Amino acid sequence: MSVSPIYNFSAGPAVLPEAVLRTAQQEMLDYNGTGFSVMEMSHRSDMFMGILHHAEQDLRSLLNIPANYQVLFLQGGATTQFNMAAMNLAHGFERADAVVTGNWSRLAYEQMPLLTDARIHLAAHGGEQFDYKDLPPVDNWDIDRNAAFVHFASNETVNGLQYADMPKLSDGMPPLVCDMSSEILSREINISDFGLIYAGAQKNIGPAGVTVVIIREDLLERCPKNIPAVFNYRTHIDKDGMYNTPATYPIYMSGLVFRWLQTQGGVKKIEALNELKAQTLYAAIDGSGGFYRNDIAPHARSKMNVVFQTASADLDKKFIQEAELRGLRLLKGYKSVGGMRASIYNAMPYAGVEALAEFMADFQRRYG
Amino acid sequence: MSVSPIYNFSAGPAVLPEAVLRTAQQEMLDYNGTGFSVMEMSHRSDMFMGILHHAEQDLRSLLNIPANYQVLFLQGGATTQFNMAAMNLAHGFERADAVVTGNWSRLAYEQMPLLTDARIHLAAHGGEQFDYKDLPPVDNWDIDRNAAFVHFASNETVNGLQYADMPKLSDGMPPLVCDMSSEILSREINISDFGLIYAGAQKNIGPAGVTVVIIREDLLERCPKNIPAVFNYRTHIDKDGMYNTPATYPIYMSGLVFRWLQTQGGVKKIEALNELKAQTLYAAIDGSGGFYRNDIAPHARSKMNVVFQTASADLDKKFIQEAELRGLRLLKGYKSVGGMRASIYNAMPYAGVEALAEFMADFQRRYG
Repeated sequence: MSVSPIYNFSAGPAVLPEAVLRTAQQEMLDYNGTGFSVMEMSHRSDMFMGILHHAEQDLRSLLNIPANYQVLFLQGGATTQFNMAAMNLAHGFERADAVVTGNWSRLAYEQMPLLTDARIHLAAHGGEQFDYKDLPPVDNWDIDRNAAFVHFASNETVNGLQYADMPKLSDGMPPLVCDMSSEILSREINISDFGLIYAGAQKNIGPAGVTVVIIREDLLERCPKNIPAVFNYRTHIDKDGMYNTPATYPIYMSGLVFRWLQTQGGVKKIEALNELKAQTLYAAIDGSGGFYRNDIAPHARSKMNVVFQTASADLDKKFIQEAELRGLRLLKGYKSVGGMRASIYNAMPYAGVEALAEFMADFQRRYG
Repeated sequence: MSVSPIYNFSAGPAVLPEAVLRTAQQEMLDYNGTGFSVMEMSHRSDMFMGILHHAEQDLRSLLNIPANYQVLFLQGGATTQFNMAAMNLAHGFERADAVVTGNWSRLAYEQMPLLTDARIHLAAHGGEQFDYKDLPPVDNWDIDRNAAFVHFASNETVNGLQYADMPKLSDGMPPLVCDMSSEILSREINISDFGLIYAGAQKNIGPAGVTVVIIREDLLERCPKNIPAVFNYRTHIDKDGMYNTPATYPIYMSGLVFRWLQTQGGVKKIEALNELKAQTLYAAIDGSGGFYRNDIAPHARSKMNVVFQTASADLDKKFIQEAELRGLRLLKGYKSVGGMRASIYNAMPYAGVEALAEFMADFQRRYG
């Protein structure tokens, strides 16, 4: 094993705070004197219900979730939410609007029509116009005020795009449905601007296997009775999250991450750190005289997933290989995009970003 | 904390082998010298793909899964499989058959029609005839040979019923689809007798959050193209289980359980132990002169979930409370059934069953 620290830049499942892993390790065979591992607890036991409710309360507190929003910890990932959102919220509507700004929102747009009668209308497209290098401003979205909802992704993990100002619609417009998987808890947001937020845990929340859903209560009236209970938001709300056995251990781990985030000063504090981390990497790219490139419009650059490349695929490969040997791991870009991608979620310490910036300078000295 | 051991009789999430938990504890911050926690590994990394493929191979070896069956580790629990099975396998069929023998197969029967055009036909019912105290013999099932499939649950967790001889259909009959959640890996079975087997992990496999699906390859041709990719078995097969991020840590834990089961001598050996455990508890019930009762037809008694009761709900409550204090935990029966339920899956050691039998005798001496 290397003596120098390892930094994990995976886009997800991603790095977790070391303090969280140490707590999980200590409690593995005996949670809080119960004599049980969390994995062995009946989901309906007081022991586990306590863990679940605590996690929910901490998330509510971190994100300032108003009382008229319900919180669920579901299974199936964000991918399942593409269809659950459409099945539950578009019933009886002629149309729902979808904004396509990269890999994930495109997939949502493609999948959402499959279990709903509503037509999914392409409300804005970052591809044809911008080749996923810029984001269509919310004022340019072509929205029907009678649409069931407007779906978008606030951060595109693959393409490295993020809305710097979180989109907001005026009163009387349809509810915003947002895939926030790769940025939730990374900055302060106003939950009341959304109808539904969903997020796969494996980036900024916890381990893979749990999906956080935050839904405005009045929208639950739309959930049709003739869809399977397991895909119905209202079933899960009515059963206090226990309609079927949830992914108990991933929920427990998410709760530990929420508590860790509180010890870091909460979302406002981590947002400032995330700003600094992103600035450091983009400065390393922009200050390289063109040796490293990031082609995203500056105002649309993601603070979570920093994509960059050198002049050739061969040099990118060498960069990734050498970085691996220095303990800077999983920097390879998504297969359809290529190049490098540094995912710098909440749990990535500033030291990891510094180490990467230093290696970038060193690599350029040797190959530039 | 008590000095005497704690035995966890939860119906699921359930007890895990202590050796498995100790390995997980040791590897929490550094899996196999990688410097990563398993939870932090990209699901597409070689590190995690190795874990996944090893788990699959061990499961194939333990269950003697033939080469023409595919294995998936999905999310959403057995409950999601009710609808996935119907959506994927009943497309273009007029009818699918369902056998209802207790709580879980009844729920499957109720949910399966909701996303398929096929009519779900009640092929046999253990309720009206038997009040879930006996199982309809497979020879009495009313099956249409043109049905898409025949669904049943081999073990009813809530009601404490289990087919002693695993149902098998003759050649030319529809494929059997079996919910095997609460007994998979507890006894030898012939995979070739089934079209599809699914099992939520949280009883005999690992922690909650992963569902094992074993499917005969030729049935994949039925999967329609117009269902969401995330609910399509073929998508997951085509993408080598990586269509979306799977529940990586629960898969890793399941793999550890598979290896543990190999060290115990495999399924044949654990089956003998499971026989002995069940015999011990049923002998304690039957030998109590009526103080404890189990009303299931003897040939249909579950070897995984032993339900029993005393003469009154008050006495049941006292039993459960006193048992808790002796470290015999989570013996309360399912809310709709009442009484007691001792779930004695693979990971329950014989000592736990002995301790329960001794406590039963002691309790009877004091209250009988």
